[in-house]
Amino acid sequence: MATIDRTFHVDPATMHLYIESLGKIGWQDECGAVRLAYTPAWMEARKQLSAFMQAAGLEVREDAVGNLFGRLRGEDDSRTILSGSHIDTVPCGGKYDGILGILAGLGALKTLREQAGQPRRSLEVVALCEEEGSRYHATYWGNRAMWGMIRAEELDALRDADDISIGEAMRAAGFPPERYHEAARSDIAMFLEMHIEQGRILYDEHVELGIVEAIQGILKFQVTVHGRAEHAGATPMDIRRDAFQGAAQMALDITRQVEERGRPAVVTMGRWDVRPGGVNVIPSEVRFSIDLRHPDEATLRQLARVCSETCESVARRRGLEVTVEQIENYLPAGMDTALQQTLIASAKTYGASWKYMVSGAGHDSEQMSRHVPAAMLFVPSVDGLSHNPAEYTPIEDVVRGVNVLTATLYQLAY
Amino acid sequence: MATIDRTFHVDPATMHLYIESLGKIGWQDECGAVRLAYTPAWMEARKQLSAFMQAAGLEVREDAVGNLFGRLRGEDDSRTILSGSHIDTVPCGGKYDGILGILAGLGALKTLREQAGQPRRSLEVVALCEEEGSRYHATYWGNRAMWGMIRAEELDALRDADDISIGEAMRAAGFPPERYHEAARSDIAMFLEMHIEQGRILYDEHVELGIVEAIQGILKFQVTVHGRAEHAGATPMDIRRDAFQGAAQMALDITRQVEERGRPAVVTMGRWDVRPGGVNVIPSEVRFSIDLRHPDEATLRQLARVCSETCESVARRRGLEVTVEQIENYLPAGMDTALQQTLIASAKTYGASWKYMVSGAGHDSEQMSRHVPAAMLFVPSVDGLSHNPAEYTPIEDVVRGVNVLTATLYQLAY
Repeated sequence: MATIDRTFHVDPATMHLYIESLGKIGWQDECGAVRLAYTPAWMEARKQLSAFMQAAGLEVREDAVGNLFGRLRGEDDSRTILSGSHIDTVPCGGKYDGILGILAGLGALKTLREQAGQPRRSLEVVALCEEEGSRYHATYWGNRAMWGMIRAEELDALRDADDISIGEAMRAAGFPPERYHEAARSDIAMFLEMHIEQGRILYDEHVELGIVEAIQGILKFQVTVHGRAEHAGATPMDIRRDAFQGAAQMALDITRQVEERGRPAVVTMGRWDVRPGGVNVIPSEVRFSIDLRHPDEATLRQLARVCSETCESVARRRGLEVTVEQIENYLPAGMDTALQQTLIASAKTYGASWKYMVSGAGHDSEQMSRHVPAAMLFVPSVDGLSHNPAEYTPIEDVVRGVNVLTATLYQLAY
Repeated sequence: MATIDRTFHVDPATMHLYIESLGKIGWQDECGAVRLAYTPAWMEARKQLSAFMQAAGLEVREDAVGNLFGRLRGEDDSRTILSGSHIDTVPCGGKYDGILGILAGLGALKTLREQAGQPRRSLEVVALCEEEGSRYHATYWGNRAMWGMIRAEELDALRDADDISIGEAMRAAGFPPERYHEAARSDIAMFLEMHIEQGRILYDEHVELGIVEAIQGILKFQVTVHGRAEHAGATPMDIRRDAFQGAAQMALDITRQVEERGRPAVVTMGRWDVRPGGVNVIPSEVRFSIDLRHPDEATLRQLARVCSETCESVARRRGLEVTVEQIENYLPAGMDTALQQTLIASAKTYGASWKYMVSGAGHDSEQMSRHVPAAMLFVPSVDGLSHNPAEYTPIEDVVRGVNVLTATLYQLAY
């Protein structure tokens, strides 16, 4: 497929209106967008979205956990081509992460309905409930509900910072938690998601679109290093067992080895706790996090071994004790090849520059791809910003992405 | 001087009583000794000490800032040979750091008075007020008062965690702060201080006494490294500006260069603050402390240049910004050579093993040595513990030290 049949041009003013209207909801000065699951700001954003969906001529429906859908019914209504993303934000997030993918699906369906009429197959845009896991440790909550993957005990076990269970929060927001299983669906045929890149590759390289080949697998570890707390003045260097010096060596050695693998392997040590923390006391205990990502499972596991072996070997050489504990585990997710090709053909038809990318961040498409063919389209983030109130994608970059998504959905559904 | 004229044997039971009686005062379960300046525990410890001094036949006196003295008047009463240490502790300290030096001086003067009668020159034991700087940033407060080095504005400017000024605390404890200058003395001839080592050299090497040649100079720095906070998944390794990786490199490079200087050079990076601190966010800002010590001023300054140049060169190579700010500065202090020789002669007379040492920790002797000849005698700390409720020196090690101190004072005063 070199190019595709027909192009569409979404209205930039409409996309601008969508982004600014939703961007205001939950915005807090000196922080940014805060729309956590089941809070008033989240409810208000859904209400505004619902109004936009209705105005676009879509059939609006919400499910038992709070996912919100806008449907453009097809002649064959048995299966559904789904597009969208998540409506929740991180605390102090921006106007693009997540919500842009919903607005892109909405813009596409509005344009298709107006310019191409009823599709052969049904199309839906979805605002998924809770992807970030900001209020609850409930990453992909709405997404998992659609696949029947929520366990009843989670309703009480998942608690926010105020000890409110997710079940209580659902009830307060008008979603009786005991009905969670009604959110499961079996009619989804495929999923397409547009998202900001959340990195600086497209922006730095002046490439207009990213076609995601895979979402990296993520392994997270907590490393604890034990040494001996002693007086900074009275303990000669040659008899110290400084936990921080060992941990720093581990961090540098791990980074060097991951760098040697080249792109797209990444490793980050972002959280550090050094104790006792006195200026004049040799550190006796250091805890740090390792966040390791790679799109190939075998390589990811091999790099995980590099991490733990490096920690152990440094600890052994320095007379320290170390434990490496795995705290999270998401396997890599390949995006559907055929859908990637349709997206590329669409991009070419619009004359847009594109490149294959690996998504370093997790996305709803990662969960979707476990069940149905899924694909992702990235648009640039200025300066690579994300999870940041200053995140920004110029309207022409937004429109280009939505146009490519629209033409792709046309190709799939008409 | 190969040996000295006369030996004395202090009563181990008396020393044991002193240590245990004072050790109880301010002791908190699950913490340890807490005797912060001008608090009730500090007052109670002074009261107990005062009673012991009186029972030992000494003339007891306190000065305007709360230093407590026990005097054994000499035939020539014009100048005073002083021995002692500080009565305050760190929070959750032990029964030896500081207080043992006071009890050693008390045991020595009690023994001399009983066994040698009136000295030729006056002897005094002192419990100095506030050496650790635990309640106030007022290290060497009592010591400085004796040398007229307190500035009037400090009385209000120094504040504890509850915002109580040191002047208010003095008044509440019965020391009108406006009289602080009355604490100044001009009759001190020399100062001798016994102290636990606070390190593990004597303990590990089974050496009984340390003769301090010098107290290391201490330079403290705060280093701030700025990089760029970006998404841990979406940012390739080769375009990162990870502030922590740079800081870790600085820490290891500085340590290696100081290690290459060999003993007694020491450097410690004990306090770390890594921001924003998210598991999946590349660190953008790291602050860490450098505590650098050496007994030779020129070497200390040269190593300080190594620290700042290393930080700058690592930052330059990694595209980071760094500032290195000096936050404390104590110059090295040489102990008096003649007094060292007298201590050594005394140690030899008792058949005690000894070695020259450099004190890595600061001590009252450091301040004293700026004004009069000063000397320090170290006794071992089991496992090198200090600033720790478990710090411990066996009574036979205590008695050996006090005997050597007693014979030295005899040599100097009789």
